[in-house]
Amino acid sequence: MRAVDLIRKKRDSGEHSRDEINFLISGYTRGEIPDYQMSAWLMATWIRGLSRAEIAALTEAMLHSGEVVSFPEIAGKKVDKHSTGGVGDKTSLILAPTVAAGGLHVPMISGRGLGHTGGTLDKLEAIPGFNTTLTLADFRRVLGECGMALIGQTAEIAPADKKIYALRDVTSTVENVGLICASIMSKKLAEGIDALVLDVKTGSGAFMQKEEDSVRLAELMVETAQRMGKKAVALITDMDQPLGCWAGHSHEVIESLEVLKGRGAADLRDLSSELSAWMLYLGERTKSVDEGRELAQKLVASGQALEKFHRGIALQGGDARVVDDYSILPQAKNRAEVKSTTSGFLAATNCMEFGQALAMLGGGREKKEDNIDPGVGLEFHKRIGDGVSAGETLVTIFYNSDTKLAEAKQLIQESLSIASQRTEPRKLIRRLVGA
Amino acid sequence: MRAVDLIRKKRDSGEHSRDEINFLISGYTRGEIPDYQMSAWLMATWIRGLSRAEIAALTEAMLHSGEVVSFPEIAGKKVDKHSTGGVGDKTSLILAPTVAAGGLHVPMISGRGLGHTGGTLDKLEAIPGFNTTLTLADFRRVLGECGMALIGQTAEIAPADKKIYALRDVTSTVENVGLICASIMSKKLAEGIDALVLDVKTGSGAFMQKEEDSVRLAELMVETAQRMGKKAVALITDMDQPLGCWAGHSHEVIESLEVLKGRGAADLRDLSSELSAWMLYLGERTKSVDEGRELAQKLVASGQALEKFHRGIALQGGDARVVDDYSILPQAKNRAEVKSTTSGFLAATNCMEFGQALAMLGGGREKKEDNIDPGVGLEFHKRIGDGVSAGETLVTIFYNSDTKLAEAKQLIQESLSIASQRTEPRKLIRRLVGA
Repeated sequence: MRAVDLIRKKRDSGEHSRDEINFLISGYTRGEIPDYQMSAWLMATWIRGLSRAEIAALTEAMLHSGEVVSFPEIAGKKVDKHSTGGVGDKTSLILAPTVAAGGLHVPMISGRGLGHTGGTLDKLEAIPGFNTTLTLADFRRVLGECGMALIGQTAEIAPADKKIYALRDVTSTVENVGLICASIMSKKLAEGIDALVLDVKTGSGAFMQKEEDSVRLAELMVETAQRMGKKAVALITDMDQPLGCWAGHSHEVIESLEVLKGRGAADLRDLSSELSAWMLYLGERTKSVDEGRELAQKLVASGQALEKFHRGIALQGGDARVVDDYSILPQAKNRAEVKSTTSGFLAATNCMEFGQALAMLGGGREKKEDNIDPGVGLEFHKRIGDGVSAGETLVTIFYNSDTKLAEAKQLIQESLSIASQRTEPRKLIRRLVGA
Repeated sequence: MRAVDLIRKKRDSGEHSRDEINFLISGYTRGEIPDYQMSAWLMATWIRGLSRAEIAALTEAMLHSGEVVSFPEIAGKKVDKHSTGGVGDKTSLILAPTVAAGGLHVPMISGRGLGHTGGTLDKLEAIPGFNTTLTLADFRRVLGECGMALIGQTAEIAPADKKIYALRDVTSTVENVGLICASIMSKKLAEGIDALVLDVKTGSGAFMQKEEDSVRLAELMVETAQRMGKKAVALITDMDQPLGCWAGHSHEVIESLEVLKGRGAADLRDLSSELSAWMLYLGERTKSVDEGRELAQKLVASGQALEKFHRGIALQGGDARVVDDYSILPQAKNRAEVKSTTSGFLAATNCMEFGQALAMLGGGREKKEDNIDPGVGLEFHKRIGDGVSAGETLVTIFYNSDTKLAEAKQLIQESLSIASQRTEPRKLIRRLVGA
């Protein structure tokens, strides 16, 4: 078998056998197939697509490129959630402690933000001392002690994905459902979980902007998880506007803590509760999703979820006083406002551009090596469908350096469309896949 | 400008500006754009295609990636021929001395064989001592002294093409008319010529197997040359069967010398005379192509073309006694015969497989680093349309090692179709483009 022939096959719309996929992935992981051949194959694959059988083979080849974790010493079910990413998406910080407080275990391996999206690891690192680079041994210990542990991808887990993702990022081969499915699922299936809840975003702030693409990705991921003997369900959720009222790392930690205290934005509360409910149900803690929803709400109302987060922060080296004292978090010194120039109703937002504006101000990465300023942020005062008066503040910008302030401000202004007629509010949870 | 954005643009079927093409080619030549990004762009380009304007920009960017030669010290016209390659295609060895004998100058930068095709440089190197790696200064001197000089691509000429071609070869991005046009024309336009005759092969032994693809490539190359102020014409010629009766390096040198002595296969004589005629006409040595044909035939009949080849060989360090003594050339020790198992007419040949069989026996390269055995060869006894008796020899194999003899023999046998009805003989020159 030769890589050049497999590239030609995919270029000519052929379908690979399982052996061919294994040859490509193991050869690339071992460094026997060079980057330039893999990137040509990735581009051919991006354009020509992958069959369901190819996606299954690719996911398994990537999963078995490294260590597959298991937790035989921990009794009870291990469950996780994965989101395809968006702006203001901070539900992991809420549902991990909620579900752990419910008695299940949440071994969560998360990513960092890139481009317009935020990353769970970056948000947690806004908390002074919080260590997301635990060894697998420490990950196991923290999980056992408090039922939740949140770390980044290690060298042992799915090394093929790590290498391929880095290449896709610089060769414009990211947004393909087959490649995305294999990338996500090879990592998640390596975590040693019994069940997985997927939050697949759709809309202007999501990687998949069209709902049909989001549904197709969701179906592929659920099918892949189920084929591997895991319970799985996917929620297709709205990303035509930010989730909650805040984007920016410190601010999102605060907003999550607020929800854990029974306050905060309604959409964020609802989605966190819904995702927690599904995790509790798939993890067999409750007999139905409805029961799961009730339990999740009770765990928040009683303070047990907040207490669990407090303990999780401390066990990962973070300053747990943050739970009661937000001033521990870095926060930007200056603020600026984006105001409406006209009266009417908020009709639409280009949500991806909010994320790009935040990145411009230092609250996101253009390149992997970039440092993040956790203190900058955006507060969104209006949701789609809300009435707006001329001169009213739509977005508040929290910033440190004004180098790119004008540019960011203009981008935000252009991202907001005001109409004279009222638009219907967005439905948060669009569809359920796999249930 | 960023390479990743240009890759995305081509992936999404966008059209590049001249500046974008220049950015890619100059960045890649300087090593600022890595192989893995160029190969992703090449695959996107292979699949999505290039517009005429993009091909023009690409050709010029590659041409200007290195030195563009000119010969102000040599009076008179410089003309060249380029063939897209096939099996038994040895016309360069005949027409270069013929046209030089006619008073024009032929500065020919040629390639090596790869895959099933032979290369002019490899054929010349069958002659003991023949040096195809002259410096540009020696190239200039030899051209001035005898009107012809044949060398390989130097580091100075179109370095972008050299680097991109090597990458295309290992990423299955070779067969695309836009990329082929830019590759050929960037080298040929760097040679300092006034006119170019293109021999674009079509059929089972050509890179472009469909006549419509060959015509499109021919049109693109002629248009590109004319836009750069060069005279150009293309002949679409048959490669459904080998050209002449011989393939293999020493044997092709001998067959070329035979044609220069007024003997040899009719199709090879005809095509060499036709290509020479066009070169003499475009180089303004004759007033018409007909006159050019007459002159070419006269230069061969008078022995002037042979005398010119003798001088050219000597000036490039080769043993010029070869002209009268073929035993100087390495020749294989053994022979084997492929016979017809049935009576009828030769209906078709899979010409590419003849080239692959020859390569298997050591007379071609699988990889760039492979050494060639110039002594091995194939003699073709029948042409399409010829009658065949059961037991009659169709092909004679000249070989040294019998390691792959059985495999090569079988491949040749399978490449020959015998039918009970007589097929029309192939038309050698199918079409003329640009005249």
